[in-house]
Amino acid sequence: MIPVTQYEDGNIHANMVPRTEEEIESIVKRLKRIEGQVRGVQKMVEDNRYCIDILVQISAIQAALNKVGLNLLERHANHCVAKAIREGNGEESLRELMDVIKQFAK
Amino acid sequence: MIPVTQYEDGNIHANMVPRTEEEIESIVKRLKRIEGQVRGVQKMVEDNRYCIDILVQISAIQAALNKVGLNLLERHANHCVAKAIREGNGEESLRELMDVIKQFAK
Amino acid sequence: MIPVTQYEDGNIHANMVPRTEEEIESIVKRLKRIEGQVRGVQKMVEDNRYCIDILVQISAIQAALNKVGLNLLERHANHCVAKAIREGNGEESLRELMDVIKQFAK
Amino acid sequence: MIPVTQYEDGNIHANMVPRTEEEIESIVKRLKRIEGQVRGVQKMVEDNRYCIDILVQISAIQAALNKVGLNLLERHANHCVAKAIREGNGEESLRELMDVIKQFAK
Repeated sequence: MIPVTQYEDGNIHANMVPRTEEEIESIVKRLKRIEGQVRGVQKMVEDNRYCIDILVQISAIQAALNKVGLNLLERHANHCVAKAIREGNGEESLRELMDVIKQFAK
Repeated sequence: MIPVTQYEDGNIHANMVPRTEEEIESIVKRLKRIEGQVRGVQKMVEDNRYCIDILVQISAIQAALNKVGLNLLERHANHCVAKAIREGNGEESLRELMDVIKQFAK
Repeated sequence: MIPVTQYEDGNIHANMVPRTEEEIESIVKRLKRIEGQVRGVQKMVEDNRYCIDILVQISAIQAALNKVGLNLLERHANHCVAKAIREGNGEESLRELMDVIKQFAK
Repeated sequence: MIPVTQYEDGNIHANMVPRTEEEIESIVKRLKRIEGQVRGVQKMVEDNRYCIDILVQISAIQAALNKVGLNLLERHANHCVAKAIREGNGEESLRELMDVIKQFAK
């Protein structure tokens, strides 16, 4: 088990390379856009908009969400797993990575 | 081209079998939950929560969104495309269906 | 249930628009290439070739197989389902189509 | 760049933990079954068998291929990447792993 360090502002995972302000801003911006798209689909459903148009929107949301997920995964590998490898926690960190990848592959 | 009937409350597609109140409520409820999950991920990103935990959440959102999409697709086929077939617009409606399926398959 | 017509050369589904010689040739050619790729991967496994190189090959096979599947699906929709719609078997044919699409979506 | 060791029986990647006889046998057996399924689909196409039945077969092949791929990926992570981490080549090996995962995610 990888130890979790206690920080004043909450728990930060020992293998975590904290996100910079810029990183947080960029990811949150994309998630806010996705949130807006999901709200837009709710309105389309309520307005009895055509199913096909709604499905096109859902497909766009999935693509956007996939992209955010893939970016987070890559950033995690390049920063956090790489750090774990350098600090001797590589194998544990790799197992975690594989577990989450298997979940996406389902 | 399938004609679009003008309704007071907006455009309703000629092939559309309007959603019932129950259908709308059930879909919107699920979309609101998805919206809440997306907001939850934003908070996790801002709080520098561990990437793996965020990725697990994103994978759950994708599964939920997939399910809503598949349900809408099935309902569209069973109701709207079936109606179009009975009313002589089946081939046009089928083409639309295949186009949106190809978009999901990308 | 859609009736199945008995032909001398075997069963041909009543809704089936038979493939032309050119269509058969083109699909079989692609399947033979896929078969060769699968055999190639067997050899790579036996030769203890590097896992990453094997995985790249498997990913290429999946892409090729996806493409063949999508082509067959589209051809089926444009020819067989369209024919079923014109001949009054549209709804049954649509249900079959949706069932197979759900299987791919799993 | 990870060095490639020259073996009498061909190149074996330096990070590669060679497959055992049992492993090779088990993977090849599954690939032979997949090869047979692909040949079966060729015959179905030539015999003008119903598109839906062919698509069900293709979907089964994709599932089988996915399973082999995921097994190879896991085995690679657990054996070869883990070895690379212990021997100081972890970061390079991790980059390779992520590259192939991104290819599957396409």
